[in-house]
Amino acid sequence: MFNQLTLSAEVGEAADIRYTPAGIPILMMKLTHQSQQQEMDILRQVTCEIDAKITGDMALKWQNSVGQVVEVQGFLAKRSLKNNQLVLHIQHIEMKKG
Amino acid sequence: MFNQLTLSAEVGEAADIRYTPAGIPILMMKLTHQSQQQEMDILRQVTCEIDAKITGDMALKWQNSVGQVVEVQGFLAKRSLKNNQLVLHIQHIEMKKG
Repeated sequence: MFNQLTLSAEVGEAADIRYTPAGIPILMMKLTHQSQQQEMDILRQVTCEIDAKITGDMALKWQNSVGQVVEVQGFLAKRSLKNNQLVLHIQHIEMKKG
Repeated sequence: MFNQLTLSAEVGEAADIRYTPAGIPILMMKLTHQSQQQEMDILRQVTCEIDAKITGDMALKWQNSVGQVVEVQGFLAKRSLKNNQLVLHIQHIEMKKG
């Protein structure tokens, strides 16, 4: 079953690192995206904001990344059982090239 | 700038087709996704729900698709200037294979 989002975005906010009971670091951040996308042969301005989560050592590396433009890849999941808000679980992240 | 979501999902709800002032058909639907995804070497259950929009003739073809499992591809945009909710603008849709 497919569930993969590839997104270029600016790191808008990044919370402090927190740790799970098992000691795994978690970083929550807010990503802001702006681009032009094709819809019905019309190029339209697109913006969106999405909360993203990095789990594990990757979280430590990206904790001071506010303002940086990154390229991320991961899957979407709802925030919690009772909260349908979408959260991007980041599996790959790198600085935006070029 | 990357902004592409690939998702397998069930069509949960589909509104009636509406038309823009220019006569372009628009179909809004609610997609429900369930899968297992890898995070930190752990396979976890993932669910999410997302509103999706099909613009143009494709909308007419998929207006009676409630209950069907589809594979879709498109870009994310916020619903409106003042509403940050994410909407998937579908660029490709097909019945889930196999």
